[in-house]
Amino acid sequence: MSAIQKNVEAASEKYSSTFTQGHLALPPAKKYLVLTCMDARIDPAKAFGIELGDAHVIRNAGALAQDALRSIVISQQLLGTREIVLVKHTGCGMLTFTNEDAYRIVDANLGSDASEELKSRDLDFQPFPQLEPAVKADVEFLKNTKLISDSVAVSGWIYEVETGKTRRVV
Amino acid sequence: MSAIQKNVEAASEKYSSTFTQGHLALPPAKKYLVLTCMDARIDPAKAFGIELGDAHVIRNAGALAQDALRSIVISQQLLGTREIVLVKHTGCGMLTFTNEDAYRIVDANLGSDASEELKSRDLDFQPFPQLEPAVKADVEFLKNTKLISDSVAVSGWIYEVETGKTRRVV
Repeated sequence: MSAIQKNVEAASEKYSSTFTQGHLALPPAKKYLVLTCMDARIDPAKAFGIELGDAHVIRNAGALAQDALRSIVISQQLLGTREIVLVKHTGCGMLTFTNEDAYRIVDANLGSDASEELKSRDLDFQPFPQLEPAVKADVEFLKNTKLISDSVAVSGWIYEVETGKTRRVV
Repeated sequence: MSAIQKNVEAASEKYSSTFTQGHLALPPAKKYLVLTCMDARIDPAKAFGIELGDAHVIRNAGALAQDALRSIVISQQLLGTREIVLVKHTGCGMLTFTNEDAYRIVDANLGSDASEELKSRDLDFQPFPQLEPAVKADVEFLKNTKLISDSVAVSGWIYEVETGKTRRVV
């Protein structure tokens, strides 16, 4: 067992020993979802004030709305959430490369079989060159798709990894 | 501003007032990633023992490996993670519906324009009927794709929302 796997087991032992929230319902109590980045420097529960059971939390590389669409539709249509809080962040890795860079790196590290699979899956890494425009574009995407009801409130924010602050953009 | 947006602002004020970790680097310090579900009852940091800055956390409906592939490849090829901890959970919403159910619900709630968009995007909600087989299948997927190096350790776990425990499956 790896050190990381041992760490999961130790955390489970500790967390479950004082756990008292086994009664929480499946649908989020406060009927909202947070979409943010997978970045290791973000703790959504603490930084955005999410109590256990209150909100769905979707995370992917860059907090990309389109990439999260399957999860968002399930959250809203099957589990009743009615508001979306989208949070990208300063220092995001998605600002640092292009799709072509990523394809080159995969080929160099993993070889031609991997490159073939990338192509056959038509994988778009969807990096973005600027932060605020990316927040605005994703909020627009969420407002324009027919798969989200017009009554759903959508706000766009930036979390600052340097200060721990979250500020609203749109 | 909605109550939920006010809550984000209040959390930001509180969190940033004692924040001392603005120095953390972009690549995860412990070089691993956790893939888990968006479910509101999961706090990955506490339940799985993730310190700020240590690991990427990817979350989607059902902790689906295929849906997370873009993020996983970025995490490993561009940001150096070397291990994957995949955690699905008891009481998952993905166990409760079929793709056909979801298509019917979207049509009933959002109308034919939404149904058209679902079809044009060819959106597969990817529900699964049984938990442990789904964990095993996703671990197999991660081991078989050429887009993840054979040297990456992959483990599959189940978090129990009733007890707060995380147990290893594979």
